[in-house]
Amino acid sequence: MANVVVTPMTFEPVYTQSAEIVERKGTGHPDTICDSIAEELSVELCRLYLQEFGAIMHHNVDKALLVGGVAHPTFGGGEVISPIEIYLVGRALSEKEGRLLPVDEIAIEVTRRWIRENIRHLDPDRHVIVQPRIKPGSRDLVDLFMRFQQKGEVPLANDTSFGVGFAPLDDLERIVLETERFLNSPALKEKHPEVGEDIKVMGVRMGSRIRITVACAFVSAYVSSLGDYLEKREAVLNEIRELARSLTDREVELFLNTADDPDSGSVYITVTGTSAEQGDDGQVGRGNRVNGLITPYRPMSLEAAAGKNPVSHIGKIYNVVANLIAERVVEEVEEVQEAYCYIVSQIGKPINEPQICDVKVRTDRSLKGLTEEIRRIAQEELDNMPETWKRFVRKEFSVA
Amino acid sequence: MANVVVTPMTFEPVYTQSAEIVERKGTGHPDTICDSIAEELSVELCRLYLQEFGAIMHHNVDKALLVGGVAHPTFGGGEVISPIEIYLVGRALSEKEGRLLPVDEIAIEVTRRWIRENIRHLDPDRHVIVQPRIKPGSRDLVDLFMRFQQKGEVPLANDTSFGVGFAPLDDLERIVLETERFLNSPALKEKHPEVGEDIKVMGVRMGSRIRITVACAFVSAYVSSLGDYLEKREAVLNEIRELARSLTDREVELFLNTADDPDSGSVYITVTGTSAEQGDDGQVGRGNRVNGLITPYRPMSLEAAAGKNPVSHIGKIYNVVANLIAERVVEEVEEVQEAYCYIVSQIGKPINEPQICDVKVRTDRSLKGLTEEIRRIAQEELDNMPETWKRFVRKEFSVA
Amino acid sequence: MANVVVTPMTFEPVYTQSAEIVERKGTGHPDTICDSIAEELSVELCRLYLQEFGAIMHHNVDKALLVGGVAHPTFGGGEVISPIEIYLVGRALSEKEGRLLPVDEIAIEVTRRWIRENIRHLDPDRHVIVQPRIKPGSRDLVDLFMRFQQKGEVPLANDTSFGVGFAPLDDLERIVLETERFLNSPALKEKHPEVGEDIKVMGVRMGSRIRITVACAFVSAYVSSLGDYLEKREAVLNEIRELARSLTDREVELFLNTADDPDSGSVYITVTGTSAEQGDDGQVGRGNRVNGLITPYRPMSLEAAAGKNPVSHIGKIYNVVANLIAERVVEEVEEVQEAYCYIVSQIGKPINEPQICDVKVRTDRSLKGLTEEIRRIAQEELDNMPETWKRFVRKEFSVA
Amino acid sequence: MANVVVTPMTFEPVYTQSAEIVERKGTGHPDTICDSIAEELSVELCRLYLQEFGAIMHHNVDKALLVGGVAHPTFGGGEVISPIEIYLVGRALSEKEGRLLPVDEIAIEVTRRWIRENIRHLDPDRHVIVQPRIKPGSRDLVDLFMRFQQKGEVPLANDTSFGVGFAPLDDLERIVLETERFLNSPALKEKHPEVGEDIKVMGVRMGSRIRITVACAFVSAYVSSLGDYLEKREAVLNEIRELARSLTDREVELFLNTADDPDSGSVYITVTGTSAEQGDDGQVGRGNRVNGLITPYRPMSLEAAAGKNPVSHIGKIYNVVANLIAERVVEEVEEVQEAYCYIVSQIGKPINEPQICDVKVRTDRSLKGLTEEIRRIAQEELDNMPETWKRFVRKEFSVA
Repeated sequence: MANVVVTPMTFEPVYTQSAEIVERKGTGHPDTICDSIAEELSVELCRLYLQEFGAIMHHNVDKALLVGGVAHPTFGGGEVISPIEIYLVGRALSEKEGRLLPVDEIAIEVTRRWIRENIRHLDPDRHVIVQPRIKPGSRDLVDLFMRFQQKGEVPLANDTSFGVGFAPLDDLERIVLETERFLNSPALKEKHPEVGEDIKVMGVRMGSRIRITVACAFVSAYVSSLGDYLEKREAVLNEIRELARSLTDREVELFLNTADDPDSGSVYITVTGTSAEQGDDGQVGRGNRVNGLITPYRPMSLEAAAGKNPVSHIGKIYNVVANLIAERVVEEVEEVQEAYCYIVSQIGKPINEPQICDVKVRTDRSLKGLTEEIRRIAQEELDNMPETWKRFVRKEFSVA
Repeated sequence: MANVVVTPMTFEPVYTQSAEIVERKGTGHPDTICDSIAEELSVELCRLYLQEFGAIMHHNVDKALLVGGVAHPTFGGGEVISPIEIYLVGRALSEKEGRLLPVDEIAIEVTRRWIRENIRHLDPDRHVIVQPRIKPGSRDLVDLFMRFQQKGEVPLANDTSFGVGFAPLDDLERIVLETERFLNSPALKEKHPEVGEDIKVMGVRMGSRIRITVACAFVSAYVSSLGDYLEKREAVLNEIRELARSLTDREVELFLNTADDPDSGSVYITVTGTSAEQGDDGQVGRGNRVNGLITPYRPMSLEAAAGKNPVSHIGKIYNVVANLIAERVVEEVEEVQEAYCYIVSQIGKPINEPQICDVKVRTDRSLKGLTEEIRRIAQEELDNMPETWKRFVRKEFSVA
Repeated sequence: MANVVVTPMTFEPVYTQSAEIVERKGTGHPDTICDSIAEELSVELCRLYLQEFGAIMHHNVDKALLVGGVAHPTFGGGEVISPIEIYLVGRALSEKEGRLLPVDEIAIEVTRRWIRENIRHLDPDRHVIVQPRIKPGSRDLVDLFMRFQQKGEVPLANDTSFGVGFAPLDDLERIVLETERFLNSPALKEKHPEVGEDIKVMGVRMGSRIRITVACAFVSAYVSSLGDYLEKREAVLNEIRELARSLTDREVELFLNTADDPDSGSVYITVTGTSAEQGDDGQVGRGNRVNGLITPYRPMSLEAAAGKNPVSHIGKIYNVVANLIAERVVEEVEEVQEAYCYIVSQIGKPINEPQICDVKVRTDRSLKGLTEEIRRIAQEELDNMPETWKRFVRKEFSVA
Repeated sequence: MANVVVTPMTFEPVYTQSAEIVERKGTGHPDTICDSIAEELSVELCRLYLQEFGAIMHHNVDKALLVGGVAHPTFGGGEVISPIEIYLVGRALSEKEGRLLPVDEIAIEVTRRWIRENIRHLDPDRHVIVQPRIKPGSRDLVDLFMRFQQKGEVPLANDTSFGVGFAPLDDLERIVLETERFLNSPALKEKHPEVGEDIKVMGVRMGSRIRITVACAFVSAYVSSLGDYLEKREAVLNEIRELARSLTDREVELFLNTADDPDSGSVYITVTGTSAEQGDDGQVGRGNRVNGLITPYRPMSLEAAAGKNPVSHIGKIYNVVANLIAERVVEEVEEVQEAYCYIVSQIGKPINEPQICDVKVRTDRSLKGLTEEIRRIAQEELDNMPETWKRFVRKEFSVA
């Protein structure tokens, strides 16, 4: 039985403190590209291993580096001059009984497919060079991983590590998250194909004043002139305004592409819809946390979830499960307004027996009456933990 | 005049909460290697620019990737089979009046020198391939940067960003930091040359119980046999024990290289003193924050300071200054036991005029009498901010 | 007026000497892949420059390196494990009035297109990583190249260099050339899709005995079993036999895939139709000369024609023109049975004014009566030389 | 018993024909650098295998690519801006009984050492990035190679291939070879440290007139000004003149650095002594043949000897042995003025039993009386062939 404790929140809610900052790097941001591809690669490796071994084998492909290209966007067109390079780095078992497994080829395919499916105008054939640097993982671990998944053994924590989650999102967080999701939705793209996928949303709250600053790479092919750009930027800003109104009653100041300098003709257009085409580099683990946000006023784990194996890697599993617990507690325990969950692993013990699983809750009621229910929820999720990998393989969780 | 506010801490001190986790990745950890080299490169570029232009020019080399090698350590020796690759990525002005500046060569030299000076048994000649991927920065910014440093103009924030710091370190934080510093000190290396530079210290506190887990790469050349290893591991553990005793009165449980399995002969030895030689990869920004620690129970910025230009990059400057303010407040205002400082930039305004500089303090006294003094300290540091770059160039700050 | 001399051949014909060796590396051989792509890249750069400047600009992309992949062919299928890498290296003007030209992107596109059009089962998306390493060429040469093509100036030789050609092909040479052309013809591929593009033909003549050894990568998808392979190999061998009969009356010994060891199951099958998939590397300039053959008993230039600029590069132009002259002399001067042509440039003089253009002919008649006619032909081709680049751009010449 | 035939030369001597061209690319030429390093790597691998297995194992590292850097030489100094990249490519056995062998590390060390020992001002630490791309060779061949060297079996030719050699060098060849050897001699370097290692010598003979054109990279650190350069160039030219006088009685026209344009200040200076620092790329097999020369009027093999394994690779062994035979015949058989030797392998037969070893000789006497002696010499060298690898390992032969 895990050590689940339920404690009261003693600090002022983040959403009533004097300042708050929230950020989201959208689908086409160089850091998010790295996170997404690393995670897709892990999923695809899982599938390969399941097919070949009937069990997921050890792998850890949680490093990636995107080296920005060179591009020359012009109104109505432009071209990529030098391609983007994407390095995929890590370890993965690449051999089965003397036969090599196509890890590199999978890395290439996954990258190309993800780009094609997610960034409309970035052509993986012409704009990207994929550089796999994945080294063979240890064969020693084959038996171990077999046992985890076939004989029901629970992986042991080989590190003292940590996951954290919270719920619910506050106003600022929801606005930031939803703004990006909206701008990258199929509906918006149909209406405004000029909106590229590289969208960064920064939200700042000072007192009750919310300011949302969006940087959005426009796609040059859909922008015929400076005038056209300014009109379309205004139209997109209006779309965001409407969205914001639907999400909060507070007043929201909105800014879009504030670095534009129309007088000098310098505005944020790109050939491909991502700043990666020209100078912006990216890495795994430098962007959104598993809940899709960067929230410096909330507890955050520095661990990158993307690309890690979902069977035994605490950094990946605990962050997701901590969020699940916090969400369920808030949803299922009516009296709880807010919950944080911290899970700390115990080295050498099964991953679902952490040293501590600390659920901090904010409630107007006495904790006493709620503790039982909250512990039950937490315990349930801990019990499910050995199966959490299945949900990663089915891509039920985002990792960025 | 900046918007400096002084507010009381409302939350329970981290050091009295039920659980706390602190981590430090030491000098030779792959992530720290990346951070350190990126920062050295920035410093060296600053020096080049000062010499060539009389002012620091725009650059941002805050991405790096270390691809682990392949090595075969044996008791008393061993060898590196495949080298480590280090990719250095970013932008830097590389031209002066039509003449090219040796950015790539500096990147190579800096890497080699840093390795030679910091990781005794990693030979930059034979064990490392340096891969510069630094693209030319914009020439447009030359004039701008000249003005900052020669005509006294203050750089403008071109982003809404954020820095955070706190003081003082609590017991757990001090023990974690000092343990690594001690194990990587010249004195310890002289006594125990077998202690490699890749040292990871994880500290966990549950209630009043502190557990310190150290993973330390031993250098195989100094370890003649399994028995010798076990003896030396014990001796090092005793050194750590003594240190811990000198740092706290609490009971501290200590563990060293818990993943060792002496029965199978599998212990943590390396040829070079770093796990980068065999499979462990690294990136910039994935390890320690600017105070040298990873502290998930404290507020943290995800921004990597390493490699950014120190003149105008808020992510770098604000984190360091926020720590300076917190430290000075605690030191100079006797009544304050603990201080956190958050600084949020205001886009388009001089960097030393943030939207808010929020100093949260814990004190038994009334805040009222202290506010003036605290604001004065914060204001002083904000006023100094346009000169902070000089201290980065003199390497007065760590960034990892 | 160029220094054209006509001299008699004094040596025994190659085709009557006691031994003769001729080799051809087919379309899918790693060296030929490198040559072909380097030349396609040159052609495409020519087109870009013609469009942008109205004239071909300086470039020299005559280095390329193919690093073989890792593949696992099996009867009826198999897969590529690690991709082939193709490095494209050289210099090319990459800027026009401050605007960058997409040299890298062209390199990528050209490579992908050439592979798709020439090697049916090598998928440029999944099996190949293109690595452009083309550095900016000198802007100083822009004016010079403009003058060549727009004001009719003839480029000056900036090197003492050399080209050589001969005609006609002898029996052995024709058989070797035609065998590969036949095996890589659309008709044969339709009938025998199992015949991959990587075909190496080695012809040896000892006295009057000719032996042709063909190494041909079979495509595993079309070969269901070892038995099937052996049958298909036999069928292909029969096709070659018929071809050989149609080309010569001499007896020809034929061998196909002599390294096969059916007893151990080791036969020459590949996933992609080229040995580049598994270990075989390639370079520019290591394979066929401009006439498509390697003929160590004939004079050969070591210069690689592929990838060089066709306007001013003597190594490229002279070899092709020397072959043209030899061919025309043999064709148009009835009395001449065989011709060799050597052209030596004169440094600092127009390329069409060589130091010497030496046409050696074999004839039963007196040379005297033929000299005038032969010199006329040679002079005509030298006069055309400043326009030869147009034929390279139209791809009228092979370079491998 | 091999099929050794002795035949008379029927063609006019090269040295009396109307034109002749000879070239040598010196030690520091990018192509020669590639050849030299590939060969050093083969030698070092041989030594590793001898030590580990008691026999040389299969390897083939006969591809290399040098990608030129960027440099900015100035009178009295200058600097390298972007490093040279050297890719080393091929196959080599990299495992012994499950233990990895340090092939990559050897590749790096060999490259660095060769540069340090051969190109005084090219600093392998700062000016060069070594990129090993050597894939594991087949373990299947281990037994085979053991047998060759330990049980005295002779390797079988697995290809029909060819080697050729001739002797003696004629006047033009000797002058070209000796000029480069002289300019790269320690004595000359001491007297004229400004003479870099990248020296290309082109010799052209038209009738009896010899013209030698030398392109020599001067080292900028030793040249204080344009005037100094011109003086030193003149002094070096005088040195060459004296050498030429000592080598031939014919009149020799000499040119040094003809592309210089002193009026515009453009002269051939380099920081490192090699054009590889700025734009010139190189490859294995594109330069000198095994006798150190490029002689298009002589028979030449296109096979690169450099980097191939010396035990079984015919392309390497036959070219060297053919030269040995030609040299011995000329030296030991007084009546022979000139000899060519062609050796053609017989697939599936021991390498020392070629299909034919054809020794063509020029003599005033009847061949009849000489044949026996010549055949004896050839046979002796063929008999020695299975031990030739030892001389490669001792570096007794040049391969470029």
